[in-house]
Amino acid sequence: MQASEQLNQPAVWSEELLKSTLETHRHQINSALDRFLPPESQRPKKLHQAMRYSVFSGGKRLRPILALGASELCAGKKEQALPAACAIELVHTYSLIHDDLPALDDDDFRRGKPSSHKAFGEATAILTGDALLTLAFEIISREMPGDLAGPLTLELARGAGSDGMIAGQAMDIEPDGKRNLDLLRYIHRHKTGSLIAASVRMGATCARAPEESLEKLSSFGENLGLAFQITDDLLDVEGKAAKLGKPVRRDQEQGKLTYPSVLGLERSRVEAENLIAKAVAELSYFGEKGEFLEALARSILKRQY
Amino acid sequence: MQASEQLNQPAVWSEELLKSTLETHRHQINSALDRFLPPESQRPKKLHQAMRYSVFSGGKRLRPILALGASELCAGKKEQALPAACAIELVHTYSLIHDDLPALDDDDFRRGKPSSHKAFGEATAILTGDALLTLAFEIISREMPGDLAGPLTLELARGAGSDGMIAGQAMDIEPDGKRNLDLLRYIHRHKTGSLIAASVRMGATCARAPEESLEKLSSFGENLGLAFQITDDLLDVEGKAAKLGKPVRRDQEQGKLTYPSVLGLERSRVEAENLIAKAVAELSYFGEKGEFLEALARSILKRQY
Repeated sequence: MQASEQLNQPAVWSEELLKSTLETHRHQINSALDRFLPPESQRPKKLHQAMRYSVFSGGKRLRPILALGASELCAGKKEQALPAACAIELVHTYSLIHDDLPALDDDDFRRGKPSSHKAFGEATAILTGDALLTLAFEIISREMPGDLAGPLTLELARGAGSDGMIAGQAMDIEPDGKRNLDLLRYIHRHKTGSLIAASVRMGATCARAPEESLEKLSSFGENLGLAFQITDDLLDVEGKAAKLGKPVRRDQEQGKLTYPSVLGLERSRVEAENLIAKAVAELSYFGEKGEFLEALARSILKRQY
Repeated sequence: MQASEQLNQPAVWSEELLKSTLETHRHQINSALDRFLPPESQRPKKLHQAMRYSVFSGGKRLRPILALGASELCAGKKEQALPAACAIELVHTYSLIHDDLPALDDDDFRRGKPSSHKAFGEATAILTGDALLTLAFEIISREMPGDLAGPLTLELARGAGSDGMIAGQAMDIEPDGKRNLDLLRYIHRHKTGSLIAASVRMGATCARAPEESLEKLSSFGENLGLAFQITDDLLDVEGKAAKLGKPVRRDQEQGKLTYPSVLGLERSRVEAENLIAKAVAELSYFGEKGEFLEALARSILKRQY
């Protein structure tokens, strides 16, 4: 039996099974992204090269995998959710390119490679982000069934917009309140949580799931997203540059508000564990079918996916 | 009779009638934009201020007016096309904000006011552009009827994407071929023509117009867009900074490829006139109902709108 066929089986999700299932998902997502991205041979060549450079720079595809997992959880077919899943990854990639720009986080490396503005120049990096964001919506409207294009566009735009991901980025670069835990939660919930919640909601929408399923998955995604960001903060303090693919302790150098800096390492770890427990609790509604997303959520704490 | 009621009447379109009709359209568009933009009192406040600052900085609303005009031309109701028209203006505004950035055109003024990055800083300007682009798709998917959300999203994403507007911007900042008239036409057709063609196509889509109407309007929009850009190039050479709201002769200083620099002033003027004549010829298909768009197109040559 293929790992992908076991996705909704009541199996014990060993580390190996999770790993091979994630690999299968990644492979399908990467093939689809390759189909959806404009060829490098087509004008404007440098822009298209830059789009592919960042999309294929070794991302772990967490968000599109969550979308596919949520779609299967709601009895949808994985293939049908692929365009929406790819659209989410393009939005995630654009946000990293713009975040790395000198005017924002000024990061020269991303996933172990020069970031887009280092490889292609700042102007092209800005336009590349713009083009990936625009392409995300083109793919949804072109590839998804007519009755789903509107709802999926709405989910993605809300998750990524000025009341979602961009709100988190804006408050991260220029907080408008006291630098306390409440502000930190706001930033993380928006910057990371919104798009992760949109990912599972979009997957469920692809399967035409009822509102109740969407609500359970929203709560799952929000808690997972916040836990994910806390583990990211922890990695920045504890991690090795080689594993992370970017310099560590950047947050500290930039005086950024992080969980370890506000709560300390140990309480941050406990907070991440509690959030994963909350996320997993939402999956009980779906019974055994929730086991893949549960295994994926638990692996966040170890950052294995 | 209100000027707006006369829109599809067989009237002589005097300069005054055109002016008052455009004013009525602008008023409706501005009211709708005000409804659709997040309030400044809502977090992240600075971002929302920056979004409103650029959207309400005195734009002439050519693209949304073209969308409304095309919708009425195809027997659609203006109110129904308003969300799509506003989405186009948000995309246009985002493109100006990103274009003005130091890494791109490095323009400190826009419409007589400090450009976004001068007023709010570069980081916020980048995020503001991203937020406006995202909001455009949110508005279409939230406000338009379900069966139109997909087709309108597709038109807008194609017109604005890496085979549309962004292709023109990318080739403008870094041309990959000889700096000749062919390259210049490519840049202008994409950078300006694509979104203008999308505007009239989207207006017609709002009215559920048949494919033949969309094709006529595409050709109208492409020719109009190129003519519009040529008159913009001419204004940069001949215009007064006060009227233009930004410094003149910037193109020349930056060594940019423009129509006057390639063809000379007189031949550029003739080219613009020929393009407007071609655009207007496409409208004959619609009979008398095409008079508003014809008057609007002819006014482009005088840059009166």
